[in-house]
Amino acid sequence: MSMCIATYRSFDDKADFDKKALSIAVGLTVGSWTELPEAQKASMEKHLGKVLSVTVHEPEQAGAGQRYADIVIGYPDINFSRDIPALLVTIFGKLSMDGRIKLIDLDVSEDFASAFPGPKFGLQGVRDLVGVHDRPLLMSIFKSVVGYDLAGLQEQFYQQALGGVDLIKDDEILFENPLTPIEKRVAVCMEAARKAQEITGQKLLYAVNLTGPTSQLAQQAKKAIAAGANALLFNTLAYGFDVLHELSSDPNINIPIASHPALAGAMYPSPHYGMSPAVLLGKLNRLAGADLVLFPSPYGSVVMPKEENLAIDAALKMPLHHVKASMPVPSAGIHPGIVPLIMKDFGQDVVVNAGGGIHGHPMGTAAGGRAFHQAIQACLAGVSLEEAAKQPNHAELASAIQAWGIKQS
Amino acid sequence: MSMCIATYRSFDDKADFDKKALSIAVGLTVGSWTELPEAQKASMEKHLGKVLSVTVHEPEQAGAGQRYADIVIGYPDINFSRDIPALLVTIFGKLSMDGRIKLIDLDVSEDFASAFPGPKFGLQGVRDLVGVHDRPLLMSIFKSVVGYDLAGLQEQFYQQALGGVDLIKDDEILFENPLTPIEKRVAVCMEAARKAQEITGQKLLYAVNLTGPTSQLAQQAKKAIAAGANALLFNTLAYGFDVLHELSSDPNINIPIASHPALAGAMYPSPHYGMSPAVLLGKLNRLAGADLVLFPSPYGSVVMPKEENLAIDAALKMPLHHVKASMPVPSAGIHPGIVPLIMKDFGQDVVVNAGGGIHGHPMGTAAGGRAFHQAIQACLAGVSLEEAAKQPNHAELASAIQAWGIKQS
Repeated sequence: MSMCIATYRSFDDKADFDKKALSIAVGLTVGSWTELPEAQKASMEKHLGKVLSVTVHEPEQAGAGQRYADIVIGYPDINFSRDIPALLVTIFGKLSMDGRIKLIDLDVSEDFASAFPGPKFGLQGVRDLVGVHDRPLLMSIFKSVVGYDLAGLQEQFYQQALGGVDLIKDDEILFENPLTPIEKRVAVCMEAARKAQEITGQKLLYAVNLTGPTSQLAQQAKKAIAAGANALLFNTLAYGFDVLHELSSDPNINIPIASHPALAGAMYPSPHYGMSPAVLLGKLNRLAGADLVLFPSPYGSVVMPKEENLAIDAALKMPLHHVKASMPVPSAGIHPGIVPLIMKDFGQDVVVNAGGGIHGHPMGTAAGGRAFHQAIQACLAGVSLEEAAKQPNHAELASAIQAWGIKQS
Repeated sequence: MSMCIATYRSFDDKADFDKKALSIAVGLTVGSWTELPEAQKASMEKHLGKVLSVTVHEPEQAGAGQRYADIVIGYPDINFSRDIPALLVTIFGKLSMDGRIKLIDLDVSEDFASAFPGPKFGLQGVRDLVGVHDRPLLMSIFKSVVGYDLAGLQEQFYQQALGGVDLIKDDEILFENPLTPIEKRVAVCMEAARKAQEITGQKLLYAVNLTGPTSQLAQQAKKAIAAGANALLFNTLAYGFDVLHELSSDPNINIPIASHPALAGAMYPSPHYGMSPAVLLGKLNRLAGADLVLFPSPYGSVVMPKEENLAIDAALKMPLHHVKASMPVPSAGIHPGIVPLIMKDFGQDVVVNAGGGIHGHPMGTAAGGRAFHQAIQACLAGVSLEEAAKQPNHAELASAIQAWGIKQS
């Protein structure tokens, strides 16, 4: 029987967790079981959820509020349609409100996944687009540009592009507005990208923020593409994973999509409620077709524990039926002195993504990008940042290290 | 200046909350302020967020992890488009991931609200449709019907309808499926509704579950309406508030929509993260156009504290610009012996919504509905349930009280 498998962490000082697991498996599928007549059981069995395992963790001290069990339930695919809302409502709709319980893992069946093309480009496809296969990619984030006009926006874009970054992303709070509407924003920024490329030689993706009414998003995306857009930024959780899935599956939206984690903090940080980052930002984003996935790095002020960061990274890259890997983009608090750590934690298949670490560089925005490239090249060559900073033409890295230091762990 | 106003509860043992409030007001709008040249300040001021108040709550015991502040910030409407994703991404996008912080209230401006027609029917409109103005409405929930065929579904519907209920709602985990596709489900259930009405005299709304790909929901709704549907059930949080808004604003979807809280438990129960139930299930549902709003009652096993229930109730009914009130539907754990409490807590403008309290009645499903009506009539007449149960023709109420008792508080 083909099933999607959900793993929950359920907290309760006294519960009989085996009984609880059974009540979930029955309650969220056929509703009742032991009372059913035998004839009905035969016809309903294919709909019945299965308790796959229950692992109880007893705390050292009784009554400390930390007794929990990891409960694994299989949900027959026959019960729900092949879309993320149906899956989530089944496995965590009513259950999310049933006391202290968190969805910590989710494995979808091949049958369920077959309805999802997944990322159109994915990790390798994004590399192909920018022509970079032998190092981490470098992304720069617009500083807040609310209230800017097109000229101001273009100038900020150009300075970032001059640093040789591979991607530039819009501010996620820049919505459709009369000063910088999407098609004009794309036009002026892509013009700046071309000018910068003549100097840097680096191809560049500009992830423009896709906003507005849900039913008009696909049309907005096509308008942006017609204006020359070569990537999109999308606030997935504000719209729903199914909307991302429909955008990423649209054959006429043939540019990569970067999924922003805005609002995710309403769902992942509590130990007792919500969903783990690996499910929420990892598996669901990838299934829904995000080519790049942003999430809070463990290095900055907006922090997520490192093991949860690495679990997202694994979720984006592990084998998942036919679905391509997505590119991880740990974000916030990144400066050149953190590059060795990022590459230790994520390997080369990562986007080094910086805002303040580029714009705040003492020698300016373009120097900020160059400092990151110098740091990346040093790591690839096995040279310490201290050593690299002493090399000729590495003033930008030296200046960055002087400003922000080098993070050792 | 027209602004939407967000109230946060921010927890921190040591923070300078005034500084934190300022960093939110600046960081989520213009990005930086004090460093700006005066000329730029003049042009940017209209975009700058305002700290409206900061109220610090010092705990009795220092370092107990319970020091917090309620921070109220005004966000200029000029910064975001008139849609819920833009509003939420602005006020709680990145901020949701910034430590222990919960969005506890939200007041939208008249300008922002002007883009939202709100509920097409609302509390009074739903009353008009069923022709009941002088008592709480009574709703019955399908038991799990996953795996049922049309005949089985129709029979369960008919038994519920015979009890004289005003509304029947689909199981929220019943998705589009070959056994009971939406248009056939509507046809057989509305046929049963007509037959039951000949006996009970009660008009009845059947909220059929609207499911499937986001872009096809409006079409599905219209297919259901063509088949005779007179209400919809919608898993709002699985799709996004903007999708509900677009459905409720569609002039061709002229039947009420009941918003189901599936997945809400991922966002409201933590004291430190997410959104309060009054915002998540109250204000946002109403703004997005839900005519009826389901939420976990404080009476059953799926519980929510009573003050949070009453805050949802207030959010659904308080003055909100031109937006109609929505009908509250506290759900789970409801039996006839709880009716006096519901009416004490919510008044008459409430839907008494029961599943097990109807299907589990010792004399059967139809008797279950009648027992609720007897309880409601007793409360309206100022007669205690004990007394009412002794009256002639009140065997159903007596039996319900014997089975489940009367809840005093």
